[in-house]
Amino acid sequence: MLLYADSQFTSPYAMSVFVALKEKGIDFELRTVDLNAGANRAAGYAAQSLTQRVPTLLDGDFALSESSAITEYLDEVHPGTPLYPTQAKARARARQVQAWLRSDLMPIRQERSTDTVFYQPANVALSDAALAAAAKLFHGADALLGDGQEYLFGTWCIADVDLAVMLHRLILSGDAVPPKLLAYARHQWQRPSVQEWVNLPRPPL
Amino acid sequence: MLLYADSQFTSPYAMSVFVALKEKGIDFELRTVDLNAGANRAAGYAAQSLTQRVPTLLDGDFALSESSAITEYLDEVHPGTPLYPTQAKARARARQVQAWLRSDLMPIRQERSTDTVFYQPANVALSDAALAAAAKLFHGADALLGDGQEYLFGTWCIADVDLAVMLHRLILSGDAVPPKLLAYARHQWQRPSVQEWVNLPRPPL
Ligand SMILES: [Ca+2]
Ligand SMILES: [Ca+2]
Ligand SMILES: [Ca+2]
Ligand SMILES: [Ca+2]
Repeated sequence: MLLYADSQFTSPYAMSVFVALKEKGIDFELRTVDLNAGANRAAGYAAQSLTQRVPTLLDGDFALSESSAITEYLDEVHPGTPLYPTQAKARARARQVQAWLRSDLMPIRQERSTDTVFYQPANVALSDAALAAAAKLFHGADALLGDGQEYLFGTWCIADVDLAVMLHRLILSGDAVPPKLLAYARHQWQRPSVQEWVNLPRPPL
Repeated sequence: MLLYADSQFTSPYAMSVFVALKEKGIDFELRTVDLNAGANRAAGYAAQSLTQRVPTLLDGDFALSESSAITEYLDEVHPGTPLYPTQAKARARARQVQAWLRSDLMPIRQERSTDTVFYQPANVALSDAALAAAAKLFHGADALLGDGQEYLFGTWCIADVDLAVMLHRLILSGDAVPPKLLAYARHQWQRPSVQEWVNLPRPPL
């Protein structure tokens, strides 16, 4: 298989698929697309990526974009570590988390871009809008995560990675994060597949 | 079951779940949440909706938000019309379409809000950014939809509804839409479950 990611390896969505491939033990080539140069809109890439975004996975001649669609696909067609819970309601909640993190909490995503996660922390305080988004994030995460639980849904799933990234946007810039969620996110961050992404060699920004 | 939608019935995501429930033949109560009054952030609703958004589905005491997570759940636990393709690659592409329409094409979603679909067409021309998003939408939709095909993936699926709504943001305000996509979207719009949503009685804006 072949995974297209951004040149800086800062896309949280490319990261999610990268971790999924590692967890599944799938051999794959990692190739980069220079988003700053608009390479995602060039004819060659756009012919493979319906959405002209990263990540895109190539499985033979089957090309698929949108990270949550890719991880669902990988889970359906490949054995190995399950990426989603097997019980229907827990699986529904994992999908809920993924959809939520991809479509809401915009002030956090803007003021704590993943450049602040993988390159350099932010040195500007969060706006009121971002603090409100953080409060909402904490409330939702706390409701899902049982006290003293290692993972959202009993055993590890891909939504744990996505949630840990969102929390690390705050953690790594020194923003206040409740202790339970801080401990949870730091634990997720130590997972070997996650550390492989974190430690990828990156070009200067 | 109980479905929470917005008071104006303009949420394309509430619509997607409404159509899914109708297609499954599931009896449900439709209840509204006044987003303009912030009722989605009130304690009662927020206790049920992790994301404090509509739609939220209640299945007994199981509460679930985020429309694509809800339609996946309904498809897994209820017989009746399939909401997603059964073949893995087609199902992956349907999820790709849903994720894409929920996280991209923002200029269209802003300049052609669903108020323009369900209340009154826009009378302002699209910006260059929205025209570029429309071109991207048309390119992606055309690539997925075979010439003369009734549905994206052979038989009807929930992604057909989501794509038809996005196209209707343009169609109903008189923006140029390629003939193949215009015919496709108009055909989807006539589906009885879709017409039930379109024809819901709405309060003044
Ligand atoms: Ca960048
Ligand atoms: Ca709790
Ligand atoms: Ca409204
Ligand atoms: Ca075609």
